[in-house]
Amino acid sequence: MFSTPRGTRDILSDELAVRRRAEGILRETFERYGYREIQTPIFENIELLTAKSGEEILKHLYSFEDKSGRKLALRPELSAPTIRLYVNELRHKSKPRKLYYLENCFRYERPQMGRYREFWQAGVEFIGSTKPEAEAEVIDLAVKCLENLGLSNFSLSIGHLGIIRDILNGYGIEDKMQNHIISLLDKGEVKGIAELPITDSAKEILFQVTEIKGGREKVFKKLGSMLESDSRKALEEFDEILSFMEKFGVKKYKLNLGIARGLDYYTGMVFEIHEKGLGAQNQICGGGSYSLVKLFGGGELPSSGFAFGFDRLMLALAKEKRLPSSDKTPKIFIIPTSKKALQRAIGISKMLREKTSCDLELMGRKLDKSLSYADSEKIPYVVIVKDDSSDDMVILRDMESGDQKTLKIIEVPDAIK
Amino acid sequence: MFSTPRGTRDILSDELAVRRRAEGILRETFERYGYREIQTPIFENIELLTAKSGEEILKHLYSFEDKSGRKLALRPELSAPTIRLYVNELRHKSKPRKLYYLENCFRYERPQMGRYREFWQAGVEFIGSTKPEAEAEVIDLAVKCLENLGLSNFSLSIGHLGIIRDILNGYGIEDKMQNHIISLLDKGEVKGIAELPITDSAKEILFQVTEIKGGREKVFKKLGSMLESDSRKALEEFDEILSFMEKFGVKKYKLNLGIARGLDYYTGMVFEIHEKGLGAQNQICGGGSYSLVKLFGGGELPSSGFAFGFDRLMLALAKEKRLPSSDKTPKIFIIPTSKKALQRAIGISKMLREKTSCDLELMGRKLDKSLSYADSEKIPYVVIVKDDSSDDMVILRDMESGDQKTLKIIEVPDAIK
Repeated sequence: MFSTPRGTRDILSDELAVRRRAEGILRETFERYGYREIQTPIFENIELLTAKSGEEILKHLYSFEDKSGRKLALRPELSAPTIRLYVNELRHKSKPRKLYYLENCFRYERPQMGRYREFWQAGVEFIGSTKPEAEAEVIDLAVKCLENLGLSNFSLSIGHLGIIRDILNGYGIEDKMQNHIISLLDKGEVKGIAELPITDSAKEILFQVTEIKGGREKVFKKLGSMLESDSRKALEEFDEILSFMEKFGVKKYKLNLGIARGLDYYTGMVFEIHEKGLGAQNQICGGGSYSLVKLFGGGELPSSGFAFGFDRLMLALAKEKRLPSSDKTPKIFIIPTSKKALQRAIGISKMLREKTSCDLELMGRKLDKSLSYADSEKIPYVVIVKDDSSDDMVILRDMESGDQKTLKIIEVPDAIK
Repeated sequence: MFSTPRGTRDILSDELAVRRRAEGILRETFERYGYREIQTPIFENIELLTAKSGEEILKHLYSFEDKSGRKLALRPELSAPTIRLYVNELRHKSKPRKLYYLENCFRYERPQMGRYREFWQAGVEFIGSTKPEAEAEVIDLAVKCLENLGLSNFSLSIGHLGIIRDILNGYGIEDKMQNHIISLLDKGEVKGIAELPITDSAKEILFQVTEIKGGREKVFKKLGSMLESDSRKALEEFDEILSFMEKFGVKKYKLNLGIARGLDYYTGMVFEIHEKGLGAQNQICGGGSYSLVKLFGGGELPSSGFAFGFDRLMLALAKEKRLPSSDKTPKIFIIPTSKKALQRAIGISKMLREKTSCDLELMGRKLDKSLSYADSEKIPYVVIVKDDSSDDMVILRDMESGDQKTLKIIEVPDAIK
């Protein structure tokens, strides 16, 4: 017997039907907001991935060479491929571009509860607006997706890297060092920051700012008292984003200036959503605004976006007992009672399949065994076809109640629930 | 700038929307026939793939080692993974199992018109029945899928490897040699067969039989006269399959005893569907009955199935001008005429998005530029929001006709087509 490769799994029909339903809800929500779906190849040239995420990503990649020696890797996330697609195919189009994806990604990491090496991400990129109202809509969309899925036990945290960059600019710290500091912040490496060649007062205010958490009023009061008046540009922008976001109806959130999101290209607003009951691996969404387009050769162009960990969303839905129902079991099982009846049953299957899902006994089994099969498959109705019945009559059996009645074939679709 | 890896491509929104619609038609059709979708990992242990397809497949695989030295490869097709899933997860369930998939596959081949290294397959596996009525339903389903997609310019060819095996058995030729012969037949290597260590009369009848093509009556007459009476078991089964298939309504087909489908595990009925206008690469479907389950450690169990080349189906639909329409352009674009109006527009977007897809001007552009954007995006309606309008009135503009009218917000969803 052959197994699935380590860290991957098969998804069986009942689970997949529920996932497809959840995917449909996300697609519908993205499209309601004017986003359009795109699809990129499963693997990319490795340089694209390291350009975005640094060399560090290499140890988590499924990388390989094709037979011509091209260095490729399975995509570890979808925002680099999406921005690459934008630069290659859409950069001359009018702006903004609102793109979404719902695809699988691959990371070579230790498999854990709910964490596989093949996993799915659903996300959006809003490319081409710097406006606070655009960033506010991105956050609103993330929340709306969760609401439409039926989730409620999640918490939204919002930060702003621009505020930290304003402070660092105030101390004359260069971009490269800023990126390094933000990357250390993201990993929680306080010690690393303590050892950096920047002034103690810069370190002190950095530690203070990134510790700030809480409601909007409290956080803004604190930040206002800490920041010099010429370091408040990002703070004002942040304030505008939050005001627009509340207009969109997002009112339940906490601010957290410690959210850093690691990668260099994040520039301003950043946010994370955590599902409360999921344990240690409880982040279900991460996003923010960034400038990736330039990195990939498309000129200076701001964008915002987020990605859901789709598998974790499914865990969250299970935890909240809100998994969408999606029953793809065939509605009817047709059982012919003889070989001659099979000829009739085939014609009946063709008719019923125009209206509903319908399976047909094709194993040559007798009635009782066929009924057991329908029962084990949880098929709700059985149509019993005899060869001696008048041409258009069949027996319809409700498998739950066991009730049977004789009726015309054309009456069957209306007789089932 | 970074490009897509050679042989792969990005799929943009308009094309993807049409593909999603076609996928939906296939899924719906499979489900009407009682099939259930499954999903397997994008890569498999390489032994699985060579067990099914032989070492020859290696030169067409994207193969690689993971960081623990496991030999993996991107799946080149989906029937091996599907049968593996069956053996691992479903072999103890009642039979039959009717499984379908619609996923991407990967082959390292020279990219050609309409042939990419990443491509999509949609297919089914009917696992567990030996009955001719089951094989007939599989063929019917393949034809029904094409009809539901709107295709009509295709031709169905059906053969039966059992007939060839019966003949070879009659000459005492062993299974291994039989498989080799069938593989040569599939590749059209007549010369290879001529050089084999089997009797001349066996070669002669083999060449004659595999040349037989045409309508059912003519072909059966010819075969009947050529085959010994003890070599007619498969012929009789073939006859039954065709009778059931015609009962299912499939009446337009040709027989072709030369269809071999290469791989060892094909045992009986085989079929191919070609789209007439597609040129050299015109096979859109291949299928048959086979015994793969045993090969993967699941005991002797017959199965039948087929796979569509989904990308070729899309080419066929384009060729026949039957691409399903799927317009995912947002229905409405909301334009606020001032910063104050933006506050109102946000609230209006929330209301309209409960009913329809709706984009919102978030670039801070003025009315005329915003209208140009809506026009370039082919968005059919614009809602213009002024800050001095009474609280529940907006202007609705039909972008095609240019007509404008003032109406209540709640009247907008009914006022658009």
